[in-house]
Amino acid sequence: MSGDFFDALETRSTTERELDLFGRLPALIAHAQANAPGWAKQLQGVDAKTIVNRSALQTLPVLRKGQLKDLQSAAPPFGGLATRPVGQAPRLFMSPGPIFEPQPGHDDPWRVARALFAAGMRPGHVLQNCFGYHLTPGAWMVDEGARKLGCAVIPAGIGQTEQQLDVIRALKPDAYVGTPSFLRILIEKARELNIDISNLKNALCAAEALPPSLRQWFKEQGLERVLQWYGTAELGCVAYESEAQEGMIVDEHCLIEVVRPGTGDPVAVGEVGELVVTCFNNDYPMIRFGTGDLTAILAGPSPCGRTNVRIKGWMGRADQTTKIRGMFVHPEQVATIVKRHPEVRKARLVVSGEMANDSLTLHCEAVSSIDQDEPQAAALNARLVETIRDVTKLRGQVSLVAVNSLPNDGKVIDDQRKYD
Amino acid sequence: MSGDFFDALETRSTTERELDLFGRLPALIAHAQANAPGWAKQLQGVDAKTIVNRSALQTLPVLRKGQLKDLQSAAPPFGGLATRPVGQAPRLFMSPGPIFEPQPGHDDPWRVARALFAAGMRPGHVLQNCFGYHLTPGAWMVDEGARKLGCAVIPAGIGQTEQQLDVIRALKPDAYVGTPSFLRILIEKARELNIDISNLKNALCAAEALPPSLRQWFKEQGLERVLQWYGTAELGCVAYESEAQEGMIVDEHCLIEVVRPGTGDPVAVGEVGELVVTCFNNDYPMIRFGTGDLTAILAGPSPCGRTNVRIKGWMGRADQTTKIRGMFVHPEQVATIVKRHPEVRKARLVVSGEMANDSLTLHCEAVSSIDQDEPQAAALNARLVETIRDVTKLRGQVSLVAVNSLPNDGKVIDDQRKYD
Repeated sequence: MSGDFFDALETRSTTERELDLFGRLPALIAHAQANAPGWAKQLQGVDAKTIVNRSALQTLPVLRKGQLKDLQSAAPPFGGLATRPVGQAPRLFMSPGPIFEPQPGHDDPWRVARALFAAGMRPGHVLQNCFGYHLTPGAWMVDEGARKLGCAVIPAGIGQTEQQLDVIRALKPDAYVGTPSFLRILIEKARELNIDISNLKNALCAAEALPPSLRQWFKEQGLERVLQWYGTAELGCVAYESEAQEGMIVDEHCLIEVVRPGTGDPVAVGEVGELVVTCFNNDYPMIRFGTGDLTAILAGPSPCGRTNVRIKGWMGRADQTTKIRGMFVHPEQVATIVKRHPEVRKARLVVSGEMANDSLTLHCEAVSSIDQDEPQAAALNARLVETIRDVTKLRGQVSLVAVNSLPNDGKVIDDQRKYD
Repeated sequence: MSGDFFDALETRSTTERELDLFGRLPALIAHAQANAPGWAKQLQGVDAKTIVNRSALQTLPVLRKGQLKDLQSAAPPFGGLATRPVGQAPRLFMSPGPIFEPQPGHDDPWRVARALFAAGMRPGHVLQNCFGYHLTPGAWMVDEGARKLGCAVIPAGIGQTEQQLDVIRALKPDAYVGTPSFLRILIEKARELNIDISNLKNALCAAEALPPSLRQWFKEQGLERVLQWYGTAELGCVAYESEAQEGMIVDEHCLIEVVRPGTGDPVAVGEVGELVVTCFNNDYPMIRFGTGDLTAILAGPSPCGRTNVRIKGWMGRADQTTKIRGMFVHPEQVATIVKRHPEVRKARLVVSGEMANDSLTLHCEAVSSIDQDEPQAAALNARLVETIRDVTKLRGQVSLVAVNSLPNDGKVIDDQRKYD
């Protein structure tokens, strides 16, 4: 820790960072291929030593979160994706799904110390950790990060509100870590019981949205800093807010990409897509892991001085698989349709009407030459209808739209049917 | 770890052990006096370097668990008994009372690895830890012990029974750690749902009584070993069972005494009294800590080959303070009465009748010369009645009884009144 930054990595140049991460990537891939049968299969035929830059990385398949359950059922408990035997992990977890995860066997295995530091926590501070420690790994990510940073943790869990206020009164924690909603409950109960909790200066939230109005309310209640971090059970911390509060800064040991849902193809800076993460973790490596979460890359650096790329934070779920007339339709299928027609740059499948009486329209942004040529457009339209049928076994309509006219929300399938 | 024992300490000679522990004791006491104002006060005037054997240890005051709450209120949060600042502890806890405890800042701070080993757990085993991790330290004691031993822990907590069975099915833990009653719930639910949990071979229980009939039932359900350990939130593990299942073997870093409740005076081997523990822990030292729990020392060594002294396990609570005609009567007061009359070796205050119409009789084992001399006995009786009045402000009767005729149950005050 040095001054305003957790370490010097946070302020290095983009070139330095990319050289460092891509310098380490071939060894990570080779290690995963050699020690984790699941990765050997996923990355079959990949020559690790050639994956030395972004374009090489983009040739690797994306492993999507939605695939984990099946992989784990076929090769319990971790789908062959962990490099060490089950009994050699410090701890083992079960997340909703159920999906199982091992704790990697090194200090601060989920890299949360950096996020705690950015949220104002320092060695010797006392943190009330209000994530639940049972079965799922969230609380442990914070706990291990605090061990690394040198903070004392009160393992409080969620609930037992009055007892937690007793703890706050007696142990005077400097910071809260947990969900925004439980922080709100604690503050409201403290006011009701007239308990002074003004020692709580910092809060670091995760696991659910923190609306700006709620953040403002926390500040009005006396909290100096209320920041967020983003992570998943498989990856740990991927990005975190700094005091600049302009997006989330990517962790120094993650390589992120934002891709068109259902594909491995990066979208442009600013465009909403699925967050795909490669994470330098030898025990439970993740190489192009598709989180299923939507986000967008923010252009330019953070005003706080950290130089890593920033993302907008969680913008919804990318897994838009839906069922139409008894058939599943996946974002991957929409991507397949688009790829068969070079004239189409981007598409969005809109499902409307009611269940059992629904209609299907593929809205396509076509290159501008098509846009202005009616016969060509009609021919493309007809070819697309055919491809929809080939790929999805469903009859659908096509609507060609102007370039950049589709909403920037990461949606590839927009199911507008009412279910109530 | 070497063969059947966690380390060579377990099989050293009694002399070697006492020389080791008493060799380290002066430094522990000096450290506590120098760095913890609460201990400086408690051990005022004690010359640490002279506390080199059991008789010197017995001159120190007992700090009773019942005193902690007041000490902590006067000097929050730890009553001045911790040697490091609050923010430098890895974790902070709140136990019922509330009483607060810091986690000592070293590996396996509560010395549970030894108990896990004795219960059959080995590096690479997977443990399902069914103590609750929130606020209280019990689960953490096991968790840190497993880290030291090299076992993987599933931090499961208590409750969520069906989800815990999903975890058992998927992660196949070798061992259960938790309360006997929750183990019973898990087994019964597994049978009801026809889930195979036969991978669970070992169980290590604590925190409540394990009746022999329940231990037998666990074995009938397929568990190979169901053992227990004993500890407190302040001390961590004090004693543990081995496969011999003859009492609990004292931990290698604790010095134990069993004293007459309310005093610091050791009782004879086999006699029930209050467990007093001195524990080599630099961050939260405990020097003659009166647990308030009753136990007795078992004569002779354990057949398993471990040479340390054994205790019988938990035999009830020593704190027998009661209220008689509006006045509190404490075990310490009974001890004071006894000390004023050298002819009396042991006494038991029996309270009988009904509330508001109760009678008070001090049963005294007097030396045998008195026993056989009626005038001397009558004179002693009269002097005792007077002392009872002086010490308790209450009128009571005295009954002189034969030596060794009082029950061996650690009771100094026996309140036989009915409260319903």
